[in-house]
Formats: sequence, C-alpha cells, structure tokens
Amino acid sequence: MPVLRLTLAYDGTEFRGWQRQAGVRTVQGVLEDALDRVLRAAPKLSVAGRTDAGVHARGQVVSFECDADADPLRRALNAMLAPELVVLDARPVPEGFDARFSATAREYRYRIDMREVPDPFTARYVWHRPGDLALDEMRRAASLLVGEHDFASFSRRPPGDRRSVRDLERLSIVREGDNVEIAARANAFLHQMVRSLVGTLVAVGDRRTSGNSMPDVLEARDRSAAGPVAPAHGLTLERVIYGRR
Amino acid sequence: MPVLRLTLAYDGTEFRGWQRQAGVRTVQGVLEDALDRVLRAAPKLSVAGRTDAGVHARGQVVSFECDADADPLRRALNAMLAPELVVLDARPVPEGFDARFSATAREYRYRIDMREVPDPFTARYVWHRPGDLALDEMRRAASLLVGEHDFASFSRRPPGDRRSVRDLERLSIVREGDNVEIAARANAFLHQMVRSLVGTLVAVGDRRTSGNSMPDVLEARDRSAAGPVAPAHGLTLERVIYGRR
Repeated sequence: MPVLRLTLAYDGTEFRGWQRQAGVRTVQGVLEDALDRVLRAAPKLSVAGRTDAGVHARGQVVSFECDADADPLRRALNAMLAPELVVLDARPVPEGFDARFSATAREYRYRIDMREVPDPFTARYVWHRPGDLALDEMRRAASLLVGEHDFASFSRRPPGDRRSVRDLERLSIVREGDNVEIAARANAFLHQMVRSLVGTLVAVGDRRTSGNSMPDVLEARDRSAAGPVAPAHGLTLERVIYGRR
Repeated sequence: MPVLRLTLAYDGTEFRGWQRQAGVRTVQGVLEDALDRVLRAAPKLSVAGRTDAGVHARGQVVSFECDADADPLRRALNAMLAPELVVLDARPVPEGFDARFSATAREYRYRIDMREVPDPFTARYVWHRPGDLALDEMRRAASLLVGEHDFASFSRRPPGDRRSVRDLERLSIVREGDNVEIAARANAFLHQMVRSLVGTLVAVGDRRTSGNSMPDVLEARDRSAAGPVAPAHGLTLERVIYGRR
C-alpha cells in the first residue's frame, strides 16, 4: 500500500493536544474524522510529535497508508479544517516511511514576551512573563544542557527503566525586541521536555537558580531537581527532519 | 474635573464591536464595567473610533473625566482585562481634550493573505483571499480615491442629508511576501468606509472593476456603485492622531 505524508500547521489553543481521546477535541481526532469523511476509511496515523494540549505546530508531520492522490486529498482536508488546522503539504513517500520512526530530529520554538503589558495579537502563542531575563546566564546554562544526556530530570514522568537519554543538538536563546525565542532541536524529546528546559532556563534568567547547577540537575535524574514546566501555549513544533542528520 | 486619556489595544474577535449594547459583550461594555469596579463610578467615555464587531485595535483612544491617578488605574485595568484588551498608556490630558472630537486623523490597516492555504496563526487578523491581486491596478484606483471627496458610496448607510465628505489623506497598498497591507488615513471615516474601500480595491485587483471607474463610483453617492464590504476581521485601527495635521 502506498504511503502519504502530510505536513500540518495548527493553532493548539482549542485542541486538547494531539492524541485522540474520547469526548474531547484533539488534533488527531479532528484529522482522523476528516480523513474518514474524505476517504471513507480511517487510516492508522503515525505522527512525529505528540503535542500536548495548547501546544502549536507549524511543521507537524503525519504518515499513513493510503492510495488516494495527495493533492485532491490536501485540498479536501483544507476545505474542511482550515484555518485552525491546515495541510501545508501532502506527498507520496516510499513504502516504509513512518512519520515518527523515520524522523531524525525535531525542532521546537518557545516564545516569551518580557514586556509589562501583553500583546493581544500574540497572547495565544507567547508566554507573557514580564521583566528582563538574564540572557547571558541562560545561554551559559543552555550550553551545559546541549549534548547527549539522560534528561530524566526534564520529563514529567521519570521513566523508570525506560531509556531517557536524548541528544539535545541545539538550545539557543535569541532576543528580538522584548521577546525571547528559545529554539530546541533533538533527535527526539521526552514528554514535556522542552517546557521543562524552558522553565529551568527562565528560573536561571530570574536568578532563582544558577546556570552552573545544570550538570547537577541532569545528574539527579529527578523531576524535582529542574525548574517548573513553562506554559504550553508558548510552545510550537516548528519542523521535523528526515534523512541523515 | 481632570481628564484621562487611555490608549487601548484589543483583539476584536470575541467582542461585538465597540459600542455598548444590552446582552452582548462589547469593548465599551467590558471597559466600562472594569472602570466601574476600579473607580466605583462609571465615567462617560469618548472614543476615537467606534470599531465594528470583529475589528481590532492597536491604538484606540478613549477619554473621560476622572480624578484617579493614571498609572495605578492602568495597572488595575490590565490586571482585570489583559490579554484580550490592554491599556498601553494612560495619562492626564488638558481639560477640554476629547478622544473623538480632538482627533485630527485616524489610521487603519487592512491585511489580506493571498496564499492558497491560510496561516492558522494570523487567520484571526487577516482576510484569507487566495490568489494574486493586480496591485498596480489597485494602486491606480487608490490614487483616484485619495483626497477630499463625498464618500457616500463607501458607507453602509447612505447619509441622507448627513455630511459624508471626508479627507482621505492616504490609501497605500504594500505587498509583504504573500500578504497585502492596505493603510488608510483620513480626518475621520464613515461607517464601514475602510472595509468598503478595501472591498472595492479588491474588486479592482480581481479585475472585476476597472480602477479608472473610481471617479464615477464617488460621483454616484450610492452604496451599490462600490464593491462589497471586506470582512471585519482583516481590519485594525492602528493609530489616532491629535494636534495639528
């Protein structure tokens, strides 16, 4: 059976996350229902990033077995789902492609607004956290977190015997006016890992934690060693990378 | 009694316009209720631009008599109303200042997205109208509309004996990637005038109407001579100008 790959963008505000759940509106649920109506069949979806409730996406990727033509399917889905959820691209991919297991890296971006008064036009997509952050100290902390580590301290559920080593390839902090953008790229992320990294970096930027303590936080392999989890609505899945890294 | 001037920004999506109406949520209603709670009095507001349902503002201005200090009032209102409605600035102004009657010009901006697929992150603030517009033809039409004219053809309610002459100082059309921004500035605008101008310019850009017909459209002084009214959610009141023009 041929495989299709869709690239999706969505505003996560009105969704209870990616994963289908009975009785609530989720991205997977809405997309599967639409596929069901267009294809008269409900394909089994593989997804690159199972975003949590309130998290957005500009470049989410899903794949599924399907012998429909990509372009008419894309147009039919957009006619049903836009503008909250849109299919940016649909294309056939070689058999064996799997949005989740073929992905070699994921890129997320977290946006923070440091102004005193929030901006009504970005408030749904940006964490409003007034007051300057010590960006140099945050960058020093970030440099100590980059690399292959056991990130159990930065995941909601400490994984027991589940392997929690990830390769954090990039954790960069850029200031744009009064906004701060934290970009994170890894081969894969643990549950709530980006928001835990951001919450910890903000604790450093607030001088509640020292940037130099990051090796100890990693070493602890305990959620309580890291900072609080940053709010979901500041986070966007920007891009999924396939192929050689 | 001293007079206070507030500069407001709001996302108009969840408001039924500026003007207070029984039983519906309006910007004026929400702001007056908040002022009532903070001041224990409901001052009579003057507003620069009575925006319609769904229209946004980045620089709306209101004034009212009030002897409270500006800064604590601003903070109290923001604590109650942000992020959907925010007070960007609050300051005492000379007696006699009136947000509506002292204004010498208003600036609006209308945003259009010409891409095939809308962007979930701007869809609330931009009119998604896929396909290229003939911008040169639109600019030619705009140049024929600028100036002091009777704009009765561009207002929802033909004004009978009400004076409908306005000085349209600017009507510019700028392309940014696949977005088009139409900026309009006038001493004052008639009801739905910006959206009627935009709808007419888009009809020109679609080659449904000739740009050269604009003098005839003005001359007709009849709503049916102009193009359709563009959707409210693409429109933002950007700025109100006081003082000499």
